[in-house]
Amino acid sequence: MNGAESLVRTLIAGGIDTCFANPGTSEMHFVAALDRVAGMRCILGLFEGVVSGAADGYGRMADKPAATLLHLGPGLGNALANLHNARKACTPMVNIVGDHATHHRQYDAPLTADVEGVARPMSDWVKTSMSARDVARDGAEAIAAALAGPGQVATLILPADTAWGEANGPAPSVVPPSRRKVPDEAITEAVAALRSGERTLILIGGRALRAKPIEIASRIAKATNAGLLAPTSNARIERGAGRVILDRIFYPLDQALEQLRGYKRVILVGAANPVAFFAYPGKPSLVLPPDCKIHVLAEPQDDLGDALERLAAEVGADAHKPLTQNALRPTLPKGALTAETIAAVVGALLPENAIVVDESINAGGWVYPLTAGSPAHDWLQLTGGSIGIGLPLATGAAVACPDRRVVALQADGSGMYTLQALWTQAREKLNVTNIIFSNRAYASLETELRNVGALNPGRIALDMLDLSRPDLDWVKLAEGMGVEAARADTIEKLIDLFQTSTRRPGPFLIEVPC
Amino acid sequence: MNGAESLVRTLIAGGIDTCFANPGTSEMHFVAALDRVAGMRCILGLFEGVVSGAADGYGRMADKPAATLLHLGPGLGNALANLHNARKACTPMVNIVGDHATHHRQYDAPLTADVEGVARPMSDWVKTSMSARDVARDGAEAIAAALAGPGQVATLILPADTAWGEANGPAPSVVPPSRRKVPDEAITEAVAALRSGERTLILIGGRALRAKPIEIASRIAKATNAGLLAPTSNARIERGAGRVILDRIFYPLDQALEQLRGYKRVILVGAANPVAFFAYPGKPSLVLPPDCKIHVLAEPQDDLGDALERLAAEVGADAHKPLTQNALRPTLPKGALTAETIAAVVGALLPENAIVVDESINAGGWVYPLTAGSPAHDWLQLTGGSIGIGLPLATGAAVACPDRRVVALQADGSGMYTLQALWTQAREKLNVTNIIFSNRAYASLETELRNVGALNPGRIALDMLDLSRPDLDWVKLAEGMGVEAARADTIEKLIDLFQTSTRRPGPFLIEVPC
Repeated sequence: MNGAESLVRTLIAGGIDTCFANPGTSEMHFVAALDRVAGMRCILGLFEGVVSGAADGYGRMADKPAATLLHLGPGLGNALANLHNARKACTPMVNIVGDHATHHRQYDAPLTADVEGVARPMSDWVKTSMSARDVARDGAEAIAAALAGPGQVATLILPADTAWGEANGPAPSVVPPSRRKVPDEAITEAVAALRSGERTLILIGGRALRAKPIEIASRIAKATNAGLLAPTSNARIERGAGRVILDRIFYPLDQALEQLRGYKRVILVGAANPVAFFAYPGKPSLVLPPDCKIHVLAEPQDDLGDALERLAAEVGADAHKPLTQNALRPTLPKGALTAETIAAVVGALLPENAIVVDESINAGGWVYPLTAGSPAHDWLQLTGGSIGIGLPLATGAAVACPDRRVVALQADGSGMYTLQALWTQAREKLNVTNIIFSNRAYASLETELRNVGALNPGRIALDMLDLSRPDLDWVKLAEGMGVEAARADTIEKLIDLFQTSTRRPGPFLIEVPC
Repeated sequence: MNGAESLVRTLIAGGIDTCFANPGTSEMHFVAALDRVAGMRCILGLFEGVVSGAADGYGRMADKPAATLLHLGPGLGNALANLHNARKACTPMVNIVGDHATHHRQYDAPLTADVEGVARPMSDWVKTSMSARDVARDGAEAIAAALAGPGQVATLILPADTAWGEANGPAPSVVPPSRRKVPDEAITEAVAALRSGERTLILIGGRALRAKPIEIASRIAKATNAGLLAPTSNARIERGAGRVILDRIFYPLDQALEQLRGYKRVILVGAANPVAFFAYPGKPSLVLPPDCKIHVLAEPQDDLGDALERLAAEVGADAHKPLTQNALRPTLPKGALTAETIAAVVGALLPENAIVVDESINAGGWVYPLTAGSPAHDWLQLTGGSIGIGLPLATGAAVACPDRRVVALQADGSGMYTLQALWTQAREKLNVTNIIFSNRAYASLETELRNVGALNPGRIALDMLDLSRPDLDWVKLAEGMGVEAARADTIEKLIDLFQTSTRRPGPFLIEVPC
């Protein structure tokens, strides 16, 4: 058995059964081993940003890592932007990156690069296997690293000769450290804050954004008259009818400052101290009031559910009902296509148990409020601010959850970064309805240009924000990659296309002018 | 004047008048400054790999750097693969990468990343400006770094507050070190090798691959009965009718070993000791025979033309005529579309003074020999092995040379990495004829799978090399980005489309099944 096969067997034994891949020569032995070992689904992406974004979507929904297979430094480079997002989402992921054979690296062949150097900025764990006999053990360590903490990005670099050389066989799984239970002092401190009589906010994030822990947090907030919020950007929130109403911190800095004004204490549960997305001249970086005391109940890598349960018990929260959302859909709109009517269509028709992937940036801002009372669903966001994740994220989520409909809310500008994901959706016949918000602009930058004080922009600046001349035609782009598509020029057409697409298997793309 | 404007003025004063950009919030002040200062053409790319690849194409043809404008760590990450190629091509380039304001970086906002860490593996020079008053001077140093040596990739990181803060004004240009004239000993050693009576090869690369130095090298080879070759992959070769016949070292390792068998000495002129593109089990990494003596006449950063002229004088090469190519086009083919007949069409109809960008990988292998006697042209290749450069490279070359026709020979698999370049071609109305070799496979990997000894591939492995299911439709993809396109299903159609497209302004795309 060669090193590649020992790794594939180790990955499968470690619970990894899905590999998103864009392989090259150095990865051919890994690919060939997939045919000798049953149990790994291998999914081709035509660009590495699709591969890493899909692995992120898979990891968020499956709660376990997918593998990626990438080709040397440049292939890993192409994957970096979405690895950055995955890392900020704390998504477990194991990247396998082929490299030149160990004896070949010294000769500076064309593809030679510092692969570890490329990996490090966007990986929590990096290792290069030095011999075929190490590969399986290194693979087991990579899985453990991916599962450690709140979820991590682990990158294992595999020189070609360690893939083709003789190995000893698969390695036993390495047990990752279990999630830390927070010390009693942290509970006591949170109780004291909640009973201080000062205005207190509970800010929950990460793995606490599932239905059960949110419900406990809501009971605590009710029992103690505290505020409850989630961060602006989150890997996954379970929400909708029957679940807890949970607002997020606003993205625009001025609104966020207003939202958090008056809080004297904040209890962080798997969330970080909130910061402005960008710095703006003369404005603060931190969003909480300067005199607000910060109490860390639990770090993202801790057992968040346990911490909330113990806190709930201490403050007698069990006697309180959580603030849940009634089933309440918007009525089907008529009239013009606007940001609000488009959102109302999604709210009115969102299928049961859907997964919503939101990279709609400005244009889809109405969809979150207008789906609050739609049937229970998951909401996945851009966590690292690196645009170009929506279509890949939806692709990976659909692979993880083949029985659910994925609805991708995709801004046109960011969609163009990784449009190749549509091809993978077509090949794998994934149940994704892609809605492209076609405003033909980097619209968010029009606001940001003002926010940073770059006033009175001229023609050159405005050209950089303008995606018309020529107009993108997303119907043709989708059809060019084998995905059926149509343009919704009226609200009636949008209703029809959305309804039809969510009721039949396979991907579909709707381009909506907005 | 703010830091951004001081930088823009410094770049323009330093001879940089073209900026390929995909900006975000942190770069808005730079963009805004472009409207206040005349002299910088700013070209939007819808993905950063387009931006860096276009800057490479521009630099290769203009012989001076373009600037790029990129957005934080992830934006730079997206640019890395083509920066890798540019670095291997020794293309001068100045990257401006926005970052969070210096005071904001400590808070780990979503887009925070180790930007220098991302830059380093694919940059020859990296610096972060620490205050608005440093930006202009740092920019002048970046230009000098880009122009140093044979041409370098320089990356300047610009925290947002150094862009919006008050600066002192533009900085004077920094003079890069002039190219070294090689010492007399190097000439003497080369003369001795050429007169040794042993079979000797002159291997010329880099800037020596322009018409004039190739001609001198050809005279030297003639005078001394030496062999003359270029490396496998080159940034730019001037060739065609009336120019010197110059073969390249073969890409397939076995053929290359055969081609170089028997050489006892090699004289390197701006070229590296040739190595195998990949390592293969049981095969050598170095391509020259083990007993071949290596003589370095000139390193890539040296004055190659001067070195060749002095060597020519020493061996009396002026009395010899170079081995030039007659004007000789293939006749227009009839019959089936094959790799050879497609290539014959290009050879028969290549316009005068064209620029050929070759990322055709396997499928276009016939075009190089069949254009040998076409009118004089430039030939640009994939230098770093990181696929996805062809369409961007063609875009940048067309910006640098608006009066010439660019012909992009593009394999379909690699074309998909950076297809967004077509939109920039349409927006800027660039004179590019894109020929997509549509074999619907990563065909080169079928060979590589065998070469690395991964025999008898199964269904999963073969699926990873297969770009059908669904078929890509490049006509729709191009039209979706505003580029007129058609499929050439017959050789007559190809002839018609190629001829028409090269005679009218603007971009066109021809999809050729092969």
